[in-house]
Amino acid sequence: MIIILKNNDYSEENPSVQKLTEYIKNYDVNISKIIGSQTTIWGLVGDTSKIDIDMIRQFDIVENVQRVAEPFKNANRKFHPDDSIIDVAGKKIGAGYFSVMAGPCSVESQEQITDIAKKVKNSGSAFLRGGAYKPRTSPYSFQGLRDMGINMLLEAKKAADVPIVTEIMDLSHLDYFGEVDIIQVGTRNMQNFELLKELGHTKKPILLKRGFANTIEEFLMSAEYIMAGGNSNIVLCERGIRSFDNKTRNVLDISAIPVIKRLSHLPIIIDPSHATGYSYLVEPMAYAAVAAGADGLMIEVHNDPQNALSDGAQSLTPEQFDKVMQSIIKRVEFEGKIMQR
Amino acid sequence: MIIILKNNDYSEENPSVQKLTEYIKNYDVNISKIIGSQTTIWGLVGDTSKIDIDMIRQFDIVENVQRVAEPFKNANRKFHPDDSIIDVAGKKIGAGYFSVMAGPCSVESQEQITDIAKKVKNSGSAFLRGGAYKPRTSPYSFQGLRDMGINMLLEAKKAADVPIVTEIMDLSHLDYFGEVDIIQVGTRNMQNFELLKELGHTKKPILLKRGFANTIEEFLMSAEYIMAGGNSNIVLCERGIRSFDNKTRNVLDISAIPVIKRLSHLPIIIDPSHATGYSYLVEPMAYAAVAAGADGLMIEVHNDPQNALSDGAQSLTPEQFDKVMQSIIKRVEFEGKIMQR
Amino acid sequence: MIIILKNNDYSEENPSVQKLTEYIKNYDVNISKIIGSQTTIWGLVGDTSKIDIDMIRQFDIVENVQRVAEPFKNANRKFHPDDSIIDVAGKKIGAGYFSVMAGPCSVESQEQITDIAKKVKNSGSAFLRGGAYKPRTSPYSFQGLRDMGINMLLEAKKAADVPIVTEIMDLSHLDYFGEVDIIQVGTRNMQNFELLKELGHTKKPILLKRGFANTIEEFLMSAEYIMAGGNSNIVLCERGIRSFDNKTRNVLDISAIPVIKRLSHLPIIIDPSHATGYSYLVEPMAYAAVAAGADGLMIEVHNDPQNALSDGAQSLTPEQFDKVMQSIIKRVEFEGKIMQR
Amino acid sequence: MIIILKNNDYSEENPSVQKLTEYIKNYDVNISKIIGSQTTIWGLVGDTSKIDIDMIRQFDIVENVQRVAEPFKNANRKFHPDDSIIDVAGKKIGAGYFSVMAGPCSVESQEQITDIAKKVKNSGSAFLRGGAYKPRTSPYSFQGLRDMGINMLLEAKKAADVPIVTEIMDLSHLDYFGEVDIIQVGTRNMQNFELLKELGHTKKPILLKRGFANTIEEFLMSAEYIMAGGNSNIVLCERGIRSFDNKTRNVLDISAIPVIKRLSHLPIIIDPSHATGYSYLVEPMAYAAVAAGADGLMIEVHNDPQNALSDGAQSLTPEQFDKVMQSIIKRVEFEGKIMQR
Repeated sequence: MIIILKNNDYSEENPSVQKLTEYIKNYDVNISKIIGSQTTIWGLVGDTSKIDIDMIRQFDIVENVQRVAEPFKNANRKFHPDDSIIDVAGKKIGAGYFSVMAGPCSVESQEQITDIAKKVKNSGSAFLRGGAYKPRTSPYSFQGLRDMGINMLLEAKKAADVPIVTEIMDLSHLDYFGEVDIIQVGTRNMQNFELLKELGHTKKPILLKRGFANTIEEFLMSAEYIMAGGNSNIVLCERGIRSFDNKTRNVLDISAIPVIKRLSHLPIIIDPSHATGYSYLVEPMAYAAVAAGADGLMIEVHNDPQNALSDGAQSLTPEQFDKVMQSIIKRVEFEGKIMQR
Repeated sequence: MIIILKNNDYSEENPSVQKLTEYIKNYDVNISKIIGSQTTIWGLVGDTSKIDIDMIRQFDIVENVQRVAEPFKNANRKFHPDDSIIDVAGKKIGAGYFSVMAGPCSVESQEQITDIAKKVKNSGSAFLRGGAYKPRTSPYSFQGLRDMGINMLLEAKKAADVPIVTEIMDLSHLDYFGEVDIIQVGTRNMQNFELLKELGHTKKPILLKRGFANTIEEFLMSAEYIMAGGNSNIVLCERGIRSFDNKTRNVLDISAIPVIKRLSHLPIIIDPSHATGYSYLVEPMAYAAVAAGADGLMIEVHNDPQNALSDGAQSLTPEQFDKVMQSIIKRVEFEGKIMQR
Repeated sequence: MIIILKNNDYSEENPSVQKLTEYIKNYDVNISKIIGSQTTIWGLVGDTSKIDIDMIRQFDIVENVQRVAEPFKNANRKFHPDDSIIDVAGKKIGAGYFSVMAGPCSVESQEQITDIAKKVKNSGSAFLRGGAYKPRTSPYSFQGLRDMGINMLLEAKKAADVPIVTEIMDLSHLDYFGEVDIIQVGTRNMQNFELLKELGHTKKPILLKRGFANTIEEFLMSAEYIMAGGNSNIVLCERGIRSFDNKTRNVLDISAIPVIKRLSHLPIIIDPSHATGYSYLVEPMAYAAVAAGADGLMIEVHNDPQNALSDGAQSLTPEQFDKVMQSIIKRVEFEGKIMQR
Repeated sequence: MIIILKNNDYSEENPSVQKLTEYIKNYDVNISKIIGSQTTIWGLVGDTSKIDIDMIRQFDIVENVQRVAEPFKNANRKFHPDDSIIDVAGKKIGAGYFSVMAGPCSVESQEQITDIAKKVKNSGSAFLRGGAYKPRTSPYSFQGLRDMGINMLLEAKKAADVPIVTEIMDLSHLDYFGEVDIIQVGTRNMQNFELLKELGHTKKPILLKRGFANTIEEFLMSAEYIMAGGNSNIVLCERGIRSFDNKTRNVLDISAIPVIKRLSHLPIIIDPSHATGYSYLVEPMAYAAVAAGADGLMIEVHNDPQNALSDGAQSLTPEQFDKVMQSIIKRVEFEGKIMQR
């Protein structure tokens, strides 16, 4: 950590200097000082990950503070050089294993979800996704079948013999997720810290989606919240960030894949359906994700997109999905990765 | 609502046309059609607020859908032309009444919060703000005193005879907020819909902060969530939006004040402290907010910003705050508004 | 074009209605009207591409105006369904032909540019890129060798027998570009309309880079400026858009490839070097671009990145480039496209 | 300037270390080193403003580089603590003097511009603004009367005895600007560096508008381009930045006023008309700008907004402007500033 002081002529007796020095001493780091032409630079040597950068910033002699090391530790590749593999129901995610999670945005009926479960599994999807609790911008939009939807997913899981992933929206629903294979934390909850902390105390695999306006560092800090509680079973998911353009719902940040792979050992998958909002963009963006090194894909599939209760515009039909999967399977092989199914 | 169809030569017997027509008929609206040079336009006449725009988009003949009317109703000025006044503990917010809410980012001790409570009240603040549950990006940063912090706030409320506002982070904490005067929903929870729904079932005044990357329409839709549950005691708060610049923490969107005033009858206040992240910007931004028509301000005040456990860099000392308040009082008067204290 | 009027009870005698009607009549379009529950909708039927949407917006009875058809015509796929092929010096760009343009950010010496020209050609690059005029944020940074740089590029072109692409920064330099094969318009000049107009009067192939904060529609409108002057030899280039994250210089908008392919017949290439700003990201982003359907790539290659006079941090060495090219060639083949070299 | 090296165990004999050391020695600065727990930090002491940060970044041992001092010098308040006053035609801008520049977006006829000139002057505007060369997104929109428009402005200047400000779009038009009092550089040309350089060689007052997606640092670097050429007569203008919301054309960054005032001695004015795009927002945003410390305002006024050839939607009528000006005059007085007229 580097602290830049406002001037270059502070004496050691300056009370502000003494106050800041004492504060830093709490953290068992050493201070090296450089007297510049206008400012003074303090370099903090040691483990600075626990120091609150905002605390330093508020000392009156401080002009600016900058981290040299990343503020996350458990998620940091520096301390865990090998790729993590998340093992779920016999499927591996990460480190050369590639998984697809497919299914409808919302669970709508037992028949629908079981039917899609069988179809996506048949096309090569390793997981069934489906929303039971649905975060919707409008209170007047369909809010999901909720606990009933979870039950339908569990029924489909049994019927099609496929593990399931579904989103949690509130801590109070956690009990319903006992047999869910992967718990998804959605984009709007990426910084719901109470939820993250509690999930850190479970051993459940977590699919953590990037907030639509969160930096990659904030994204990894949210993973750190879960890991700090003791749960390292995290799969990251990039699903588009907000921009000024309106031709797509969000801008899919494909470069997040190699950036995160450099910073962290956690696997990262891509959701081209929510990112773009249009079914015609799912195919090219899925291929781009594979080529850029993603560990998996989350794709919306609906048996009848025109009658879907949410997000039909971005869903593929099972037939379209099957065709896209044939190409994905070849591409995963081209990249030298192992398809999980 | 306007639906733009892909072509201009659909027959009434086209099954897609029939399917879409039937779907729309569910909502008791009429369809007027314009045959364009390349497309067909359907205008939906009637109350379209309950129609899910994403549902329409997924019909295969649909090129695009656009709302003409806003998707919110309870929060809409069109159906409630007069400014709402939110009445809290004898103070009025909105419709010409101006309120300041001041206090520390975090409650740190009983002595601290009681001391600040007395000082900010003395300077003219109508409410004491203080954080008990703190949303922090890092799991290693101070997380607030939590329920103990609430108790200290209630003690300070009694000691200084000043109503309090404090943030809720999870539904499970709601019980602690019984004697809190205004419950704040923070920027990261603006789209925590389960929380919004539940708060809609209380009668508590809610301070709803705009998400740092949410549109004004989404902001008002979140207010609509609370109102749809029956609770209309909402004060909106603009606190900066994320941008590409880094000279300020966020960009304070001052124009949100007149835009929201045109769209909605709800009062809107400004938080210049969190928006900018720097104490030197609080004063000019507070003055700008008053001039642009805000109904109030939320300002961070800390007795010892350099030793604050969070966000000291953006806090004013009680002395600085007192000076700024003297100017704010004059400016509120200049605007012909009535200061609440 | 759809015009939404403020109320639903305008009479034909209303002078504002008459004024707006007369204005629209100038454009030889018909008006169809829908009386809504709160507003009136006018649908304009005919060729509305010449109507200035801002002009309509200013009539006092107008609430909002929305285009149904895109505001560009020459660049529009609707009127030119087949992919355009841009033919430059015997190389084809677009419609299944794939071209790489490689070379240093800045031309630094004759020896450097000739050496790189031979190497990139040898690795399979169809074009040599190199900057002579350099747009730099700081007046104190290296500004390029300017006309001398152009001469060096032309010398390298001859020596290595490879066509060249280089950026123009001001109309007054146009004379120097006589033997340049492709004239690049940089991101900061995408809306330098005087430049675009003048380039429209040449027959030169133009590489038009997307402005770092411009929408796809604005991007295509800038192409339209050039095409309106009579020059259809345009290659579009996506090179990253500005966002709130700082882990990459910009966010590479890979989805712009399929979006633009749907809207326009013009070829689109990707510049992963400028987009990301880091050499380690060039390889995965190049592969993603190929997979998403790009018609080519622009890649920075420098013989000695550490001593480059600009943007060395994002440059590959010729050896790294050669290795990446071997993979690109295989991937282009995988996609069923024809590599140009 | 701080350089963070990748490791903490480099020997002095390491050739990369030697290469970087030699490079830095060219700039007459000293290097102080701190050996950290994972990295090495080099602090560069001396005048680093001429060092190209991108050059440093490309050395292979460099992890990151950060400036401590701002990269601009002439525009920097540190080296010029007092506010600059720009003196134009007897009017002062900056340092407590407040100026309004008003007029139509486009000059449309002699009668129009002379009429508005007289009216805005009469209402208290110090300058007449009017566009002769118009940057328009579409080639099919009105492009301005160009040199003829300049002549009309000069005629109006004489007739109403009011200095004028108008935009330049290309260097080749510079000759027409001989009698123009302030030359405006528009948002799309803020980084047209060839234009900036040339304007630096004139003595003309320049109104430099912030690019709609440029940081404040880039904004000041563009001012630095002009100042480096010898011209310090610069008035900065904030006119809104691009965001994800669409309720306003851009987001007016009011906090740019105090931020720029802290970093630079140059005056800064606000353009609420272009920033918001709606006439109903001009009044509250103008008042906010005055309260936040702006040195002036640029406001669009059109005698007949509904028939304006550009941007009528954001124009005030002369009557509306006169009313707003009465309030502005009172507010400027309230702030203790001196109105120029």
